[in-house]
Amino acid sequence: MFKKVLIANRGEIAVRIIRACHELGISAVAVYSEADKDSLHVRLADEAYCIGPSQAKKSYLDISRIIETAKAAKADAIHPGYGFLAENADFADACENYNITYIGASGEAIRQMGDKAVARKTMQKVGVPVVPGTEDLIHDEKEAQETAEKIGYPVLIKATAGGGGKGMRVVEDSTELVKALRQAAQEAERSFGNAGVYLEKYLTHSRHVEIQIMADNYGNVVYLGERDCSTQRRHQKVIEEAPSPIITPEIRNKMGKAAVNAARAVNYSGAGTVEFIVDEHKNFYFMEMNTRIQVEHPVTEMVTGTDLIKTQIIVAAGEKLPWTQDDIHINGWAIECRVNAEDPLHNFMPCPGKITRYNPPFGKGIRVDSAMYKGYLITPFYDSMIAKLIVWAPTRQEAIEKMERALASFRIEGVNTTINLQRKILMTEAFKEAKIDTNYLEEHLEEILNKY
Amino acid sequence: MFKKVLIANRGEIAVRIIRACHELGISAVAVYSEADKDSLHVRLADEAYCIGPSQAKKSYLDISRIIETAKAAKADAIHPGYGFLAENADFADACENYNITYIGASGEAIRQMGDKAVARKTMQKVGVPVVPGTEDLIHDEKEAQETAEKIGYPVLIKATAGGGGKGMRVVEDSTELVKALRQAAQEAERSFGNAGVYLEKYLTHSRHVEIQIMADNYGNVVYLGERDCSTQRRHQKVIEEAPSPIITPEIRNKMGKAAVNAARAVNYSGAGTVEFIVDEHKNFYFMEMNTRIQVEHPVTEMVTGTDLIKTQIIVAAGEKLPWTQDDIHINGWAIECRVNAEDPLHNFMPCPGKITRYNPPFGKGIRVDSAMYKGYLITPFYDSMIAKLIVWAPTRQEAIEKMERALASFRIEGVNTTINLQRKILMTEAFKEAKIDTNYLEEHLEEILNKY
Repeated sequence: MFKKVLIANRGEIAVRIIRACHELGISAVAVYSEADKDSLHVRLADEAYCIGPSQAKKSYLDISRIIETAKAAKADAIHPGYGFLAENADFADACENYNITYIGASGEAIRQMGDKAVARKTMQKVGVPVVPGTEDLIHDEKEAQETAEKIGYPVLIKATAGGGGKGMRVVEDSTELVKALRQAAQEAERSFGNAGVYLEKYLTHSRHVEIQIMADNYGNVVYLGERDCSTQRRHQKVIEEAPSPIITPEIRNKMGKAAVNAARAVNYSGAGTVEFIVDEHKNFYFMEMNTRIQVEHPVTEMVTGTDLIKTQIIVAAGEKLPWTQDDIHINGWAIECRVNAEDPLHNFMPCPGKITRYNPPFGKGIRVDSAMYKGYLITPFYDSMIAKLIVWAPTRQEAIEKMERALASFRIEGVNTTINLQRKILMTEAFKEAKIDTNYLEEHLEEILNKY
Repeated sequence: MFKKVLIANRGEIAVRIIRACHELGISAVAVYSEADKDSLHVRLADEAYCIGPSQAKKSYLDISRIIETAKAAKADAIHPGYGFLAENADFADACENYNITYIGASGEAIRQMGDKAVARKTMQKVGVPVVPGTEDLIHDEKEAQETAEKIGYPVLIKATAGGGGKGMRVVEDSTELVKALRQAAQEAERSFGNAGVYLEKYLTHSRHVEIQIMADNYGNVVYLGERDCSTQRRHQKVIEEAPSPIITPEIRNKMGKAAVNAARAVNYSGAGTVEFIVDEHKNFYFMEMNTRIQVEHPVTEMVTGTDLIKTQIIVAAGEKLPWTQDDIHINGWAIECRVNAEDPLHNFMPCPGKITRYNPPFGKGIRVDSAMYKGYLITPFYDSMIAKLIVWAPTRQEAIEKMERALASFRIEGVNTTINLQRKILMTEAFKEAKIDTNYLEEHLEEILNKY
């Protein structure tokens, strides 16, 4: 087992990983930017090193600085968390080159899944259903128009290097297509340094359902059920749950097997998520694979009784998966709300500032993953998520009741948060009856904010 | 379902019950003594009434004051929690007389189990094994001496109205017996107003294992596995776990059935615990039945995925048990530490005072049931338990590691606590190897406090 792991991240996920290390008897090394010197992950780690200024590009995204720090601290391994360098194949390769174990997939697997047009093709090859669309990247606007006509409008333009909704455009009819293609390509170039885009049929009234998989270095791949992340705003997840209220055991089985095939196709190892779109008729289509741990992994942990972070670590250290597929059972219901320091009443403007009161809910069935504390100063440099509130209960209805109560008793003062919005979403009939598709929140935002 | 429930208690259990009420859509009424006016249970309840001065006798133990308050607040039901009036048959009867549902067993069942000599006889009648001892209360010292010789020394004197170790004496040989009998009877008279005592064989190297049962008003009784509470100091539980590391599925089954028989013998309804002594050869003997929810109920909730407080409420409201015996499965491992504001280095002297820092651990597998907050003033009037730290993990070893980490990161300043002692106990080989009997802690206390 590793003696020392460096965590190339910050915030709640750094805290989560440090704890997992400590429970495994491993020393944890934190790295931090100047803005984060008073952060909880710095305090909880056994060693902590400042790696640069507040801008992520000069600290959390600086591969050579992080590798140097890991070498200096004599860390055997690096955990990338999510975001920052977590899906950067060069970083995974750099770790390998410096004889540091990267706790995640190989650079090769990250690359194959990171290029979405390539991933689409790989999936088709192994029989995983994909949304109808272009075979390759779009090189010719006329050809794109023909494809769009063939698959039928609306269509979705996606960046092959994309993520987080950037370089993405919904196109309603042929008059908008060329302009949208150019805008998307420009945005993709700006955001990812890669202008490649492709087309897919845009499925309306669809849900976002993703399968958690875990693989070891010996060819064992297990799926751990699904998460439903249909409650989104601009492709950003707001509420996640496990299991999905629309997935039957039969469909779970099929999706799980498709996800395992997807992972095997790229010789995957570690934790990964295969994201699917599920249409009104419960047909599912491969969307993309995230080659890292995800923000919403706790809901899977709650219903399967597993520890995904610890499993990532032991698998990277060369151990076999601690379970076979038959050991995985879905037990009860879990919901997660991502609490962001944002103002839903003012277009979700981020709200940096000092936390003057911080009283998270606690007790039976409540889990809070966070790095906040009273007096903490939220800086404007990073993601605005400040806490994940996760609840577990035997049934979906009880989980909703528990989440409502937990949100109501979560006291954060000093900054605006999304807590009230999330309470209101939970109160809608649409959420209670599991009728929320991925567009619902955006289409009903005004109504939800005013009504409840 | 009830519209309004009054909670005749304080501290963490009052907070726990208020939350369960809210999750069920029930209004919660708090009562409080003058010392508790700033308590969390008062803040969280929908209504709160001061019921008298700080001394429990004049507030939390004042039956007529509590009944009056419940009537004035129009509460349909009263939850007694644990301690205070929770095993007072007169209180249960008073509720019934005033048409308020008592969330617990009937006065009759409480009475039959509250008199331990009577309970012993009832158990023998239905075939539940009891520790060899006197048939009845001791009226004749000579007869007691004969019985003690017959069953063999050491023997244990127990008060028939007893609880919490009061009126209890271990007697090593016949020369001490008469004196000990008189002392125990006096202490029992002082503590409970009942001088009745009886004798049992004192089992050395035994463990304390108890079965959680739950019964509805329609004759359905289910057992929810066992808790091992062998880590005790002076009959006070310090660390509890579920399941027990020494209990096999076969023995669990036998003990469970015995506990269900015990409950049926007194027409039990609601949550109850049947406590057993388990000797070195894994023979088990009925010790007593607690006719209320217990402090350590969360470890059972964690491994069975149930909510015992909510179930108490719905069963008292006339619903059937939500599960049959076949629905109950033991999943993973849970450990609870009772964090007391006491000084283990000075004979566990209680430490009232102001909490100047309160940072409980949180995150995956961690549950804290507490009514503490920064600035809270611990008064000397009540029990010194200030928090329950509960962890869950798939295996016992992982649960121990999680508890060690959680205790290490639990920051309480302003008062002394038992946290460090509990960390040290967890580090002992005896705990890790599950070799702790009910005398272990007392016999090794010095060593544990000094060594680790």
